[in-house]
Amino acid sequence: MADKIIPDIVVGRLPIYLRALQRMLAENRHVTSSQELGERLGISAAQIRKDLSQFGEFGKQGTGYSIDYLAEQIRHILKVDQVWDIAVVGAGDIGSAVARYQGFANRGMQVKQIYDSDPAKVGTDVGSFKVKDIADIESEIKKDGIKVAMIATPSDHAQEVADQLVSAGVMAILNYAPINLNVPENVRVQYIDPVIHLQRMTYYL
Amino acid sequence: MADKIIPDIVVGRLPIYLRALQRMLAENRHVTSSQELGERLGISAAQIRKDLSQFGEFGKQGTGYSIDYLAEQIRHILKVDQVWDIAVVGAGDIGSAVARYQGFANRGMQVKQIYDSDPAKVGTDVGSFKVKDIADIESEIKKDGIKVAMIATPSDHAQEVADQLVSAGVMAILNYAPINLNVPENVRVQYIDPVIHLQRMTYYL
Repeated sequence: MADKIIPDIVVGRLPIYLRALQRMLAENRHVTSSQELGERLGISAAQIRKDLSQFGEFGKQGTGYSIDYLAEQIRHILKVDQVWDIAVVGAGDIGSAVARYQGFANRGMQVKQIYDSDPAKVGTDVGSFKVKDIADIESEIKKDGIKVAMIATPSDHAQEVADQLVSAGVMAILNYAPINLNVPENVRVQYIDPVIHLQRMTYYL
Repeated sequence: MADKIIPDIVVGRLPIYLRALQRMLAENRHVTSSQELGERLGISAAQIRKDLSQFGEFGKQGTGYSIDYLAEQIRHILKVDQVWDIAVVGAGDIGSAVARYQGFANRGMQVKQIYDSDPAKVGTDVGSFKVKDIADIESEIKKDGIKVAMIATPSDHAQEVADQLVSAGVMAILNYAPINLNVPENVRVQYIDPVIHLQRMTYYL
């Protein structure tokens, strides 16, 4: 499995399947089918079966999927059967909201540090975190061995912050600043920009 | 052009091109090429040319694209040469951060209303907005003719809110609650869930 290259678009659907399975578990459900998953997600049952078959054989013909088992397998595939520490850069509205966000629990992620460059913010509390000085970011991230970070700074600072994160060993960046980042090929970047999503919808209105 | 069906994946790249062009304009640039755009965005020049050619002929062989003209055309295609009013539902951390977000300006969007169900929040200020009572959401949205909304409520309330929004005439929903929504086929939904993006990256770590 480690040798097989799975299209990133398929990898990108696994977290969506996992989220739906975890919700079913919270509803005390134990067995599901690709049909049911498909209806919940607006994805065809055939697509779901095809995606999952890339990683192994998780269900039995006619009896469906054990939700517990399938969720466990997907967690393992996505490497979220462990908990990843996250550094948040930028303690403004978005960074603070993310640092306080309750939705990471049980999904393999936890915020561990938050940074800002504003002396008025450094040392203050955001949720249960004390805002750290961005001047120390490289040494602190190295010390804690953090591999995952979120950038929630103004656009003008985002590339510089990304460079520092990469130099400190970060391998995955979720960027809330509305600007594309240049990083080495072995570093992953994902983007969250609400306007991009909104404009994709207004096209159809 | 109105009769031609463009793949949604192509539509989804237009806002990214537009964002890059607007950034170039802010840098006082006037002409660009598919090569340069591609390098900034990590998308091949051929892909960019192919995407844009679906909508018309925007550049001249050898002279590249007028940034101003191309940005104007994409704004027109995405219908963001007008400003869309947005209703935000949920005045918690995320909803408040979104309502105060400065990044909508000049991108065809503006927050107009924010709602919550908590009596302790209704009537308080979030940025320049007074939080409205969710009990009034259908009448208020109808009155203002709002077509675009963001859901930033807990997951348990998101579907109910979506139903109310649709019933009030909303046609495009950006959902921050980590749950899939069921809406009529003519209503668009996009999702923002940081964990989905993070899990897509940890797969590769």
